[in-house]
Amino acid sequence: MGRWEPDAESRFRAAAIELFGEIGYEQTTVAAIAERAGLTARTFFRYFADKREVLFNGSERLQQTMVDALAQAPAEASAVDALAAALTKAGDFFDDDRRPFARMRSTVIAANTDLRERELIKLATLSAALAQALRERGVGEPDASLAAEAGIAVFRVAFAQWVGESERRSYGEIVKESLARLRALVAS
Amino acid sequence: MGRWEPDAESRFRAAAIELFGEIGYEQTTVAAIAERAGLTARTFFRYFADKREVLFNGSERLQQTMVDALAQAPAEASAVDALAAALTKAGDFFDDDRRPFARMRSTVIAANTDLRERELIKLATLSAALAQALRERGVGEPDASLAAEAGIAVFRVAFAQWVGESERRSYGEIVKESLARLRALVAS
Repeated sequence: MGRWEPDAESRFRAAAIELFGEIGYEQTTVAAIAERAGLTARTFFRYFADKREVLFNGSERLQQTMVDALAQAPAEASAVDALAAALTKAGDFFDDDRRPFARMRSTVIAANTDLRERELIKLATLSAALAQALRERGVGEPDASLAAEAGIAVFRVAFAQWVGESERRSYGEIVKESLARLRALVAS
Repeated sequence: MGRWEPDAESRFRAAAIELFGEIGYEQTTVAAIAERAGLTARTFFRYFADKREVLFNGSERLQQTMVDALAQAPAEASAVDALAAALTKAGDFFDDDRRPFARMRSTVIAANTDLRERELIKLATLSAALAQALRERGVGEPDASLAAEAGIAVFRVAFAQWVGESERRSYGEIVKESLARLRALVAS
């Protein structure tokens, strides 16, 4: 980690992900993350409540971005088209520069039950927020919840593909294809 | 709880759910459950590893039943039709006699973060098992995962409706309607 990295938050994140990969999530301490980043533990706690938050602290911004995109979809867009806009907009967070971090993050989470549970809670919270945003567009129940859950299904499967070892396509391309596949599956 | 209840497991379950409702999940001890059931704590531990398992110990059987129904769907059935067979077969576990228990269970789980996480892990495990069963029918990826996740979306929303306070329709009716609604939403 060099001085060319001006942003403390991303320096901590890069240092943490290196250490999780080298010595494992459980063994990595905040002190070690700070040392690797060339910063202090005290500074770490200005950005993250604990080491777990290095993996999850972007999720509120992601959720707000998706909810905003859904709310701003054209009034005449169907529930699924509005969701498609939200899923596509999430691509702002998943550009190819972030793929190595996202890959390591997925590996770390898959290996740790507590982290998997936290990830599932975050997805359930995202689903509920998208359903609420659909209701605010006038979509009734159970359609709003069904559409939001189906949207999360696409999101999970597309994200898992995007972080796949040999995957080269962009997140945006994968989401578009996943939505088309879901339409074909459900129609058949 | 009277002697007419011959089955220790269901006596424990009924006693637990009464106590969870009366004094709360956290405050309920295994000793209190056993006393209410007119049985011993020692007998309790023959059926359940801990009090949490009173709420979750049916999930393996549910999963196996759904996977079997999916595997036994006609060879020509589409992925979603095979999933529909699995979702419908789950109705064997959700007959109207069990609705009061299921309602209380949902209320208890919603109020407790650990239990919510465990429920989400169970659903993720069920989704993975259904995707595997689809792959064994020759459905490729990502279609198997997408269809399984969409099936879980229907399952969650239908189940939440079935345990709703004023809901009178059977689980089977609700699942059928939810599937039809998902088809309409995704097609539009």
